[in-house]
Amino acid sequence: MPTLFETIQKPTLLLNERIARANIARMAARAREKGVTFRPHFKTHQSAEIGEWFRTEGVTAITVSSLDMAEYFAAHGWNDITLAFPVNLRQAAAINTLAGRIQLGLLVESVEAVEALSQQLTNPVQLWIKVDGGARRTGISWKDAPLAGQILSHALKYPIFRVQGLLTHAGHTYTATSPSQVVARFHESTARLDSLRRALESEFPLPLRVSIGDTPGCSLASTFSPADEIRPGNFVFYDAEQYLMNTCSWENIAVALACPVVALHPSRQEAVIYGGAIHLSKDFYEQDGQRIFGLVSLPLEPGPGMEPAWSPPLPGARVDRLSQEHGVVYLPQTAFERVHLGDLLCILPAHSCLTAQCMGSYLTLEGHILGMMG
Amino acid sequence: MPTLFETIQKPTLLLNERIARANIARMAARAREKGVTFRPHFKTHQSAEIGEWFRTEGVTAITVSSLDMAEYFAAHGWNDITLAFPVNLRQAAAINTLAGRIQLGLLVESVEAVEALSQQLTNPVQLWIKVDGGARRTGISWKDAPLAGQILSHALKYPIFRVQGLLTHAGHTYTATSPSQVVARFHESTARLDSLRRALESEFPLPLRVSIGDTPGCSLASTFSPADEIRPGNFVFYDAEQYLMNTCSWENIAVALACPVVALHPSRQEAVIYGGAIHLSKDFYEQDGQRIFGLVSLPLEPGPGMEPAWSPPLPGARVDRLSQEHGVVYLPQTAFERVHLGDLLCILPAHSCLTAQCMGSYLTLEGHILGMMG
Repeated sequence: MPTLFETIQKPTLLLNERIARANIARMAARAREKGVTFRPHFKTHQSAEIGEWFRTEGVTAITVSSLDMAEYFAAHGWNDITLAFPVNLRQAAAINTLAGRIQLGLLVESVEAVEALSQQLTNPVQLWIKVDGGARRTGISWKDAPLAGQILSHALKYPIFRVQGLLTHAGHTYTATSPSQVVARFHESTARLDSLRRALESEFPLPLRVSIGDTPGCSLASTFSPADEIRPGNFVFYDAEQYLMNTCSWENIAVALACPVVALHPSRQEAVIYGGAIHLSKDFYEQDGQRIFGLVSLPLEPGPGMEPAWSPPLPGARVDRLSQEHGVVYLPQTAFERVHLGDLLCILPAHSCLTAQCMGSYLTLEGHILGMMG
Repeated sequence: MPTLFETIQKPTLLLNERIARANIARMAARAREKGVTFRPHFKTHQSAEIGEWFRTEGVTAITVSSLDMAEYFAAHGWNDITLAFPVNLRQAAAINTLAGRIQLGLLVESVEAVEALSQQLTNPVQLWIKVDGGARRTGISWKDAPLAGQILSHALKYPIFRVQGLLTHAGHTYTATSPSQVVARFHESTARLDSLRRALESEFPLPLRVSIGDTPGCSLASTFSPADEIRPGNFVFYDAEQYLMNTCSWENIAVALACPVVALHPSRQEAVIYGGAIHLSKDFYEQDGQRIFGLVSLPLEPGPGMEPAWSPPLPGARVDRLSQEHGVVYLPQTAFERVHLGDLLCILPAHSCLTAQCMGSYLTLEGHILGMMG
């Protein structure tokens, strides 16, 4: 009977269920201890089966990044979903249909969006104002209390809107250069939303909640106060980026892409793998001017009664560049000597969310295939 | 009756069939004029229906980058396929099955691979030696005639191998800084393979062919000599990168990702679109230190009897950054003023091959959906 690794013929996304479940349990416990709502972002795994692992930890409310994803998880029994993306007015009809079935949260960041939704929706929705707390992706400026007030006053005109509060994604924690800077940016963003909340609450007679995302901050911060809700997603798998940022240890990384070695170049200590941009995505982590498309582990065949595993990342090894199907892996000399044509390497992806999206399914170390949406 | 653009609710990959067919016809004519075999790479479009447009131009032999892709096109009537990727020994059984049905070409770059295949295959295959002509991705060095000779002599021991010759992908044309450098690198690679061929032909009594790929070189070179075969792929659609490299004009770009505008930031002249890394891929073209994830066009509603279209790329506009589902588009002031919440922008992708892979289907400007493998 061949082992799991022996059955693998092409790039395959391995999932260590034990690690992923522990990651979920740890973040759920952090949220409980710190007294905030845990509304995990399901864009990382996009899998109904993995979603069930969150239910085991008491999760009942989730975050998604597209209407398609909301519809998928609604079809799998989730009935409290925040669509954490600036509302796409072109999907208003389908949004309205879904809002008739579940409690759906939407993000707005303009009076125009509020007014357009008020015309197009007949079912009630939860409404969050998307705020830019420093990440400069999208959302109204946390300093712009007048605009926030206008949006709020328009929203309050329409009974279909159940105003929740202020929501941000402190995505600039991802470019922090140290764990302390991650935490500082996380707290700064939360404090900025809180200051906007206080400005609004002095004017409007309703309590506002503050919701904050991002795995780096939620992994490291010792308090989430004054936030009321956290929405991290990546932590379910973590990845090479989080490890290199010191927001997790390598033992927390729950996915690895198993890739066949198809060529070896001893003169430059490079292995070419079947595993490229269409498997890993073209995302990279930049460290000291070096682009790292993934870290490199070796498959570990199990002893009797053990599960298969992958090794710690090989020191100094990295996926150096990617084209459509090729990956070029740099290996220090001693590691290079251990690798042979036809072997597998287990790549810890730079960005697990995008790798999962590329791959479309998981193979657990017990040999089960887990599906994803789409 | 809504127009094509009015029906679009979420990121949608538009395909201008007229442009794509003209791109195919032009490259087929170039190959005919210059007397080389045209074996286009189908990894860019991955669509059986688009494959038929090549047949119309007399194409009978194709290139693919994975066994899955070879099986897909074989199922759609293609029976002469080169799998232009270092042979993956873990797929030997499936390779052998396919080789029993069609004329299949494989790439080897080691004696070990030749010997392993000789053990595992029972059906004849065409064999190419993969050569690195300067791109430093994979393949044996063009200077290493002894290694090429060893591979060749091992291959010649086994009658199942029908040795074809030497194959390269001059991928370093993509990092050339001018059209003349593209052409210089293309000719240099071809000449390097030719010199290796002459060294081998003096030792082995068989004619060897030289096969070369890459859209930039094949688009610009005035001769393909001394190559015998070209395998470009990207030219079927071209993209922003090719346009910025001056290997095509914007009128040659056949695909654009239609993306809804979901937020506007006047203070920094940025529009946020529903269209991110999972739609465009995270590939970018770097120009003057600026990462360009795509160029930006406006949808043009058709006049009577006309087809819908997209505008020339807006000067100075670009997709500046991408996250999983968000794109952030920088627009010069006059362009910014023309864009409203809920509008569509048509993004000319940095890299059309990866965008097509992400999207999985096309919508032609006539409103037909074209499928892809997978």
